[in-house]
Amino acid sequence: MSQLKGACIIGQSGGPTSVINASAYGCIKTALENENITKVYGALNGIKGVLNDNLIDMGKEDPNELTLMLQTPSSALGSCRYKLKDPDVDDTDYKRILEIFKKYNVRYFFYNGGNDSMDTCNKISKFMLKNGYECRVMGIPKTIDNDLAGTDHCPGYGSAAKYIATSLMEIYHDARVYDTGMITVVEIMGRNVGWLTAAASLACYKGCGPDLIYLPEVPFDLNSFTQKVKEIYDKNGKCIVAVSEGIKDKDGKYISEYGTDLAKTKDSFGHAQLGGLAAYLANYLKEQTGAKVRGIELSLLQRCAAHCASKTDVDEAFLSGKAAVEYAVSGVTDKMVGFERSYVDGKYVCNVKLFDLTIVANTEKKVPLDWLNETKDGLNEKFVEYALPLIQGEVNMVKEDGLPRFVKLKKVKAEA
Amino acid sequence: MSQLKGACIIGQSGGPTSVINASAYGCIKTALENENITKVYGALNGIKGVLNDNLIDMGKEDPNELTLMLQTPSSALGSCRYKLKDPDVDDTDYKRILEIFKKYNVRYFFYNGGNDSMDTCNKISKFMLKNGYECRVMGIPKTIDNDLAGTDHCPGYGSAAKYIATSLMEIYHDARVYDTGMITVVEIMGRNVGWLTAAASLACYKGCGPDLIYLPEVPFDLNSFTQKVKEIYDKNGKCIVAVSEGIKDKDGKYISEYGTDLAKTKDSFGHAQLGGLAAYLANYLKEQTGAKVRGIELSLLQRCAAHCASKTDVDEAFLSGKAAVEYAVSGVTDKMVGFERSYVDGKYVCNVKLFDLTIVANTEKKVPLDWLNETKDGLNEKFVEYALPLIQGEVNMVKEDGLPRFVKLKKVKAEA
Repeated sequence: MSQLKGACIIGQSGGPTSVINASAYGCIKTALENENITKVYGALNGIKGVLNDNLIDMGKEDPNELTLMLQTPSSALGSCRYKLKDPDVDDTDYKRILEIFKKYNVRYFFYNGGNDSMDTCNKISKFMLKNGYECRVMGIPKTIDNDLAGTDHCPGYGSAAKYIATSLMEIYHDARVYDTGMITVVEIMGRNVGWLTAAASLACYKGCGPDLIYLPEVPFDLNSFTQKVKEIYDKNGKCIVAVSEGIKDKDGKYISEYGTDLAKTKDSFGHAQLGGLAAYLANYLKEQTGAKVRGIELSLLQRCAAHCASKTDVDEAFLSGKAAVEYAVSGVTDKMVGFERSYVDGKYVCNVKLFDLTIVANTEKKVPLDWLNETKDGLNEKFVEYALPLIQGEVNMVKEDGLPRFVKLKKVKAEA
Repeated sequence: MSQLKGACIIGQSGGPTSVINASAYGCIKTALENENITKVYGALNGIKGVLNDNLIDMGKEDPNELTLMLQTPSSALGSCRYKLKDPDVDDTDYKRILEIFKKYNVRYFFYNGGNDSMDTCNKISKFMLKNGYECRVMGIPKTIDNDLAGTDHCPGYGSAAKYIATSLMEIYHDARVYDTGMITVVEIMGRNVGWLTAAASLACYKGCGPDLIYLPEVPFDLNSFTQKVKEIYDKNGKCIVAVSEGIKDKDGKYISEYGTDLAKTKDSFGHAQLGGLAAYLANYLKEQTGAKVRGIELSLLQRCAAHCASKTDVDEAFLSGKAAVEYAVSGVTDKMVGFERSYVDGKYVCNVKLFDLTIVANTEKKVPLDWLNETKDGLNEKFVEYALPLIQGEVNMVKEDGLPRFVKLKKVKAEA
């Protein structure tokens, strides 16, 4: 394919992860070093930064400071949850994006996010093609949810899984310190897929995990759940349960809605806002069993605890950003960089693989049902085998005063 | 003082910390190596283990496995919240303890806990003395709350403070990822004292902490609080607040009780059970401001997140356990091992100092009011100077499969 010279934009979108900045850094560093890329711009708050002409010049940042992106959680460039309209209905945004691309001679667009972001990539790519503007568009995956189709796993998941498994092991030790009874309910993120909650089973693999694990992949029955908790509690005096925020009953109603008559607010992608499940289930179990209970919501920490990141995840995140630039410069467009795993001499190896944006966008990959145990309240060895390689290795964090040193960008406004 | 030969018992009491096992290990290791100590027994679930003749022989444990106590959170021997009666009212328990001490020829008793545990030490020591049974009793401090009188600080606090400051820095990054408005309320442990919540100010010191910090040392006014949050939110579009679970209004009513009509259960020490403050304040602020809000409770993790422990804290915890044994063998009794700080060439040094159990027991050390800022919604440099040395250094954890390797004791029953 022909050589294409011009500027690039990198944007970040969707919810934070511990390693999304490692992906962005892989992209930025590789782009800054590439002779076909004349300028490297960061879009502040994702596609909104493009629409609002709010770009920063990454070449003006201190290269040493930029390396700290490898250990900084959340999106250093800012994120958004902005959904582009169907261009056949309203192409205002697309025209504006084209205008900005022309203004800065942008020939490469890298977008770092989850399903919705891949949808954004896909739409922009199609629009540019239709309008004869040569521009290579690459998606760089990011999601703690691990729900992107095609790719073996997503950057962000390994670190979240490591944090969840580690925290569950610590909670296990804490929750059984007294010889008095205790039921603990831990709520883990995951609206429609149970990958994060499944990571709690890694703590079980190490002998100190929850007794029961419930994923949204399986309809949740409050009565049989209560019965199981009672049996375990009566036998051991302790019971720890890990539940996905997104568990639903057989009629599709969220369990988190059982106890609340909160007006359901919807975000701009139409997802219902969830929360409060741990408190609801803990209270319910207290009523049913009379036991002492505690509800714990891992909350934001599970997606931003960079201090407990997986080195494997950070390395792979960097790799995906780097590969996106290299493939784009070599002529590839309209793809998401993903991973395929292989085992060499029994050792896990992660290879980059490209996926069609059309396939990835707006499809959710669920936990295979045959990775659950027979009673559907735990995971089996297939999941452990899958997840374990992803949480390996520790990040040797740069610290200052005993605390993480996170990146501080100058954010110098781009000039066309 | 005369040489005293006999067995020792080590027990752990009260809530978990990340380093209480490091203290116990300092005690156990030193005792096992001391020729005046004939046997080292662990009391399972603290003083209840003594009362129930539920002792294990620490000499039967694998010494390499025992070293893992240095990185294992919560109490490896199990804990209790059992309050001994006033011996003048009912001395049944004390007679039983004396019986067990005689049965195993226990001449050294080490008790690892907070204020209530120092009270237990004190009472046992006095009873043994009165009954002419020679036994040296030493308290080894432990509390994330940092509320023990006399000592400069307590083992357990530094690690909790490090976790809280680190988590607040990460939450700061997460909570401002979108360019849309957001108010975040983080609830931190601390029933009567604000040391833990004050640790949130270390994140401010690093430039990414909460906007407002409320300790239980200062009466909390919901109206002026709401006004301050509104002002910050209107100006910045974001506001992060750190609140102690124990904040009370000017009439002494817990703010956490405002929104709930939950029956107040009391634990065996008469403390009110708290919780749900973050959710209450977040909902309240949502009503008052219309902003998007999130309530986060750091919950158990702040006291058991050994993966984020302070190396300084672990080392000092070990030191306190070791010193307890060495002092006791040298003739000291009826004391708590504590710390005094000094600065050598501007560098923090922690020295062991002994404190009278009578003084320590049942007294709570609060955060000095002149360590707060003028508006009493933050801490000043005096607190930062105090706390910073306590969170220094990282523990190089032994891991297995990318997860912490926590101690597994054989718990071989003691034989008299």
